[in-house]
This record gives sequence, C-alpha cells and structure tokens, in this order.
Amino acid sequence: MSGGPLAGIRVVDLTTVVVGPTATLFLADYGAEVIKVEAPGGDLLRTLGGRSKSGQLSGKFTHFNRNKRSIVLDLKQDQALEVLHKLLATADVFIANIRPAALERLGLGAQALRDKHKKLVVCNLMGFGQRGRYRDRPAYDSIIQGMSGVAACNARVFGEPKFVPMVMMDHAVGLIATQCILAALFHRERTGEAQAIEVPMFENAATFVMVEHLGDLSFVPPLGDWGDRRVLDPLAQPIATKDGWIAVSANTDGQAFALFDAIGRPELKTDPKFNSVKARYANVKEYFSIRREGLKAKTTAEWLELFEQSDVPAGQVHTMESLIEDEHLAEVGMLRRIDHPSEGTKIELNNPNTFSAGLRGEQTAAPFLGGQSIEILSELGYGQAEIDGMIAAKATLDGRR
Amino acid sequence: MSGGPLAGIRVVDLTTVVVGPTATLFLADYGAEVIKVEAPGGDLLRTLGGRSKSGQLSGKFTHFNRNKRSIVLDLKQDQALEVLHKLLATADVFIANIRPAALERLGLGAQALRDKHKKLVVCNLMGFGQRGRYRDRPAYDSIIQGMSGVAACNARVFGEPKFVPMVMMDHAVGLIATQCILAALFHRERTGEAQAIEVPMFENAATFVMVEHLGDLSFVPPLGDWGDRRVLDPLAQPIATKDGWIAVSANTDGQAFALFDAIGRPELKTDPKFNSVKARYANVKEYFSIRREGLKAKTTAEWLELFEQSDVPAGQVHTMESLIEDEHLAEVGMLRRIDHPSEGTKIELNNPNTFSAGLRGEQTAAPFLGGQSIEILSELGYGQAEIDGMIAAKATLDGRR
Repeated sequence: MSGGPLAGIRVVDLTTVVVGPTATLFLADYGAEVIKVEAPGGDLLRTLGGRSKSGQLSGKFTHFNRNKRSIVLDLKQDQALEVLHKLLATADVFIANIRPAALERLGLGAQALRDKHKKLVVCNLMGFGQRGRYRDRPAYDSIIQGMSGVAACNARVFGEPKFVPMVMMDHAVGLIATQCILAALFHRERTGEAQAIEVPMFENAATFVMVEHLGDLSFVPPLGDWGDRRVLDPLAQPIATKDGWIAVSANTDGQAFALFDAIGRPELKTDPKFNSVKARYANVKEYFSIRREGLKAKTTAEWLELFEQSDVPAGQVHTMESLIEDEHLAEVGMLRRIDHPSEGTKIELNNPNTFSAGLRGEQTAAPFLGGQSIEILSELGYGQAEIDGMIAAKATLDGRR
Repeated sequence: MSGGPLAGIRVVDLTTVVVGPTATLFLADYGAEVIKVEAPGGDLLRTLGGRSKSGQLSGKFTHFNRNKRSIVLDLKQDQALEVLHKLLATADVFIANIRPAALERLGLGAQALRDKHKKLVVCNLMGFGQRGRYRDRPAYDSIIQGMSGVAACNARVFGEPKFVPMVMMDHAVGLIATQCILAALFHRERTGEAQAIEVPMFENAATFVMVEHLGDLSFVPPLGDWGDRRVLDPLAQPIATKDGWIAVSANTDGQAFALFDAIGRPELKTDPKFNSVKARYANVKEYFSIRREGLKAKTTAEWLELFEQSDVPAGQVHTMESLIEDEHLAEVGMLRRIDHPSEGTKIELNNPNTFSAGLRGEQTAAPFLGGQSIEILSELGYGQAEIDGMIAAKATLDGRR
C-alpha cells in the first residue's frame, strides 16, 4: 500500500494532456493507485511537453504523471475494451476527458458504466456542460481563457485581450475535478452509493473569473464597473530594483509607513494624500509611482532584508532558474534530484502539503508508455499467450525498458 | 440537512479574503454547513471587494461566501474564545488562514486543538511552510505570483515581469485546501483518525508553475530552456476580427486546413511551411501572422458559425458584460437572479458541476456580518442574558437585519 488518505483506492485514468492528469496527479499524491490508460500513440504531452532523452518523457509530462502506472490499450479493439472493463471491475474511480459522444460510441458513457460497475465513481471532464448549446464544441485552455473573461481582465491592464501564458484553466479545473472525486468517494464511503460527476471547463473557468471580478456588476442595475480595481490596476506590477525585480504589497498604514521610511520619504506618512488606506487608494497612481522611483536605489537582496525587518510584505521576483535554487524550497524539501534510468539526473517535485497522518510514501517517476502493460494484464489474470496475442494485434504495447 | 456529499459535516471557518473562503465555498457547495467566524470588523472583502447598498456585501464578498453563516467573535476576549471551543466541539473541520504564531498565542495551534477536539480535522493555510526560512513572512497573492514564477512567465510574453490580474494563486491554493480537507475527511471516515494539514501558498504556487513550465530545465544538465514554448509565444493571443476578438486554436492538420479554407488560403494546405504540425511549429510566427491577417475579414459571429461547421476550435472573447449574457451559461443554469433583502436584484453564481446523487440543495446568500451570531449562540445553549452580556462586551455582534 502506498500510504496516504487514499491508500487502496484504484483510479482508472483515461485522460491526457493537463486537465485530467492534474486531477489524478493529486489523487496519486493522496495515495491512490492511478492506472493511466494510453492509446498506442501515448499522451501527447510525452513529446509536445518538451525534450527528453528517451523521446517520451518530457519534463512537463513527467511532472503531471509521477506516481502513475501506464498500460497501453487500443480501445478501438474489442479485446482492449474488454481489458478496460476487467480493470474497471477492480477500480473505485474512472475519469476521462474524452468528448461525451466519443465515450458513448465506446460504450463508456456514464450510465453504461454505472450499470455495469455498481461501485464505480465516474468523473467526466468536458469542455462545456451537456445542457447548453456549446455542448459539442471542442475546448482548449486558450479558448476557455478567452470565453471565461481571463483575456478581458488582461485587457484592462494591457489595453487589449491577452491570454495568461499558463494553461491555468486546465490546471484549475483539474484541481476542482479532484475535489469532486474526493467528495464522491466520501459519499460512497458513508452511504455505499457510487455516483457520476460532470465537470465542464467553460462553466468552471467562468466561475473562477466571475467570483473574483464580477464585482459591482453583480447587482441589477450595476453599482459600477466590473472588476477589482486594486488587482486590475496597470500599475500594480513588480518593481525594478537596482539589480532585478521585487514584489511589494504595502497595504496597511503600518506597512506603507515602513515603506516610506525605507525609501527615505518619511514626510509622506503625514501627507494627506498618503496617510491612510483610503487616501492611498484615491491617489493610487501617484503612490505607485513614488514606490517605483524609490525602489531603484538598492538591490533586491538589500530591500528584502530591510523589508523583513520592518514587516513590509515583499518577495523576490524569481525566474525559473532562481526558483529551483530557492533556499526555502530546499529547506521544505520541495524538489528531489533523482537518477532516472533513461533520463539521467532529473528534478522531481513533491506535493507541498503536510498531512499529520501522512501522504503517499513511495514515490515513482512518471511511467514509460505502456511501461506496466504486462504487469497490469498479469494482475488481471491474463496468461502469457493471451498477452503475446494482444501485443501482436497491437491491442496493447509492452513498454518495459 | 443541506443535501450533497458533505451533508451533516460542520466546518468552522476562521478565514478571510480569498484563499480560505474559496476552500470553504466549495465545501459549502458540497453540502457542508460552514460557520464563518468573523472579527468585529468583519472580513475585509466585505468592503474592499467593491460597492454594496448595505456597505458590507460587496459582489466579490458575496460570491466567495454564499451558503455560509456568520458569527462575530472577538477572540481577544476569553468569553469569545470559549464560544469558539464550544463550536469546535460540535465541528468536523477547522480551517484558518492566520499566521501560525498568532494562532499559537490564541491557543489555537494545531496540536492544542487536536488534543482538545479528537475528531477535528484541522487545516492551516499559511504563506510559507514552517520548515523553511520564509516561515514568518507575510504573504499576498501578488508577492506569491512574483516568487512562484508567474511573473517570469509573463516576462516571456511582455518583455518584463507582470502579474496576472487575478488573485489566481489565492484561488488555486484554496482549491487545493478543499482537496486536502476532503481527503482528510475520507481518511477519518475510514479509520476514525482526524488529522492536521498544513497548506503553504508559496510552495503550492511554485508547484503550479513548475509542473507546467519547468520543462527542459527538469533535467540536469538542462536539455534546453524552461517553459512550454507554445504557451509562452507572444503571438499566441486572441485575434481581432471585424467587430471584436476571437480565440482560435487550430492544432491538428484537419483543424489548420479547415482554417486555411475558411480564410480563403487553401493553397497553404500543401505549402511545406504549413502542411504539418511540425512545419507549422517551425514557422509559428508566420503561421500566426497569416491567421491574424485572415481573421480581420469577418465578424466574430460569422467566424464562429464557420468554425463550428468545420470543427475548428474557437470561442468568442467575452467581456464580463457579454459573459453574463452568454446563452450557454443561461441554458446550464449558472447564474441566478435573486431578490436580496438589502441589496435589491442581485446575480448569484451556482456551482457548475453535476453530481448524480446531488449537490447542496437550498442556496442561501452570503451572510451579513454577525447575521447568525444569535442563532448560533442559541444553538450552543447560551441563554438570552449571556448573549446580551456578550453583545454589551462586544465579544459578539448581533448582525440580524
């Protein structure tokens, strides 16, 4: 057993790229056994996610797929579909991010699965909810960012709509899918009842933006413009220091006054334009430009030391190179360097949260494509001859190395 | 009972602003009874989050705090602290986003709480993990964005570090905290053991960025630069149409060729610079600029209709005004218009996910400050005289309206 709150829970994972693999990444961290079912071509992220010595383990793929096993099944073949059902008969959770119509064609619609596997929690990730007109549209993170208002928030800052250069909504919706599965497992544990869950990306993304930025537009008639002005202000940005960039957030009087002292402008503490939260908010452009001018004088390290002493909230603006060398991250044990059998020395990431009763114990690196096909087929009771037949028919693939 | 997988679970919520309220928002959606414990001044977001008729129910506050009850307790007073412990004796979960040292001073450290309340799951949200050097630093979303590499991702697009104009890491870490609590409740249900959880913002945010963008830098020595180039490309942006903006993501050959046909450039389908995924990736700047030129010719609605027919993934770039009028969102029932007792007509948001066994049934609007103080104190067995005494001492506040 893996340890962790989900020890003994088996997840059959028919997802690729980011939204689904995020959901099962966390389930694995919590101790679930995740079996990644891949088409013969494998998860696109294996190659699209960047370079790798083996040509199938891009950094991005490995981080989203640690602690999982991989079996290749060509679900267009009946034999492979039968294996999937045998697997589901042993599983607690099934998760897929295939369009609903395609799942139905494979006989893997939620109702069919629940009829066949009474104890199975079924989670379907989809672009758009099935009761609305966009139900058949394909979805990608950037399209969802455009539709959900992320790009509109950026338009306030940059003058025209821009995407956030992260697949942030794939990622966020994956986190929500993990929640949904955990809630359903809790329900099943208490009541014995398994259930089906639908998690639509667009609706979740729109909610993510609206809870934060619908603001004054939440009222009819509106009380003002939408958006939290403090967050959307184009001037609320990292600030250049003598040698780099710093993030500073001096909000209370105590913090702002300490900042004024630090930049050698103590007179501003009694200036009616800056001597209260309300005053600074009313004169925010001037306040921010004073901050920006003042912070040019010293290096980031010098400012951080000063601000630490005076309790002004601040942090270095890391690049990815400096982030992986961050001493705090080392002290809390966030990164591990491992000797990977095919990739050489490699950085692995740990789950950052602490559970007093423990998380998953043993950590395994992301699987080769079909790396555990044979192992899993054997566990399901398939004999060598049957397995060889499936390999020959390309219903599966032996990816051991 | 509320219905939903967490029906009957009681959460005592000592959090404010976004990260904690996000976590408990989802717990409430799943059916938990969330009791928001507020200091006499109330959650800052009540006023900082925008305008409201009552002066205490900003749109932003209401969206993060629907389905919660509010009790005011001035925890600096022993009497109020005693009420909190009585409440905790009836609760399943305690969550706080107060700095650990301050919680210890109140006698509300995780160990003290667990000694006193054996069945209580304790979740502490904090800026930084307690084993690292930043343990005592204050954290705000923008500082975390700077430190975790979000601003560095934007630097690739905009030339210098910029924040994402959403408190995206508060939000994402809140989603993770919900997971942690659900996993711990599942563990308690199976084993009888309650546990304490620590959820540090910086480490979770750094992970959020690194799993996606560490990329080739995951290997030692690095195989190349960090970052997923397709996401970080400055040209991968919404595109202007005749009357607005559109998001288009034509990735496969089929999608790209349909796009070439739609913009009247069918010859590009056989052009060696654009006739395969690999070719388009190698000539991405030219590909994107052709796309940009071609899409000027029609309106967004015209393109969407064309692209729907030819299965090119695309979506409108909504503003917040157009988003709340989106017909798909209306069809799936995402927004409700309610008659609020103090605020007039108001838009409420629903949880977007479907559970076949049901989510929370009854929906209640976000509470007035201390709106349920009296109700909750009565439930705990306090008599009228005691309650009046606490009100007089300002240990609580009667916020009924």
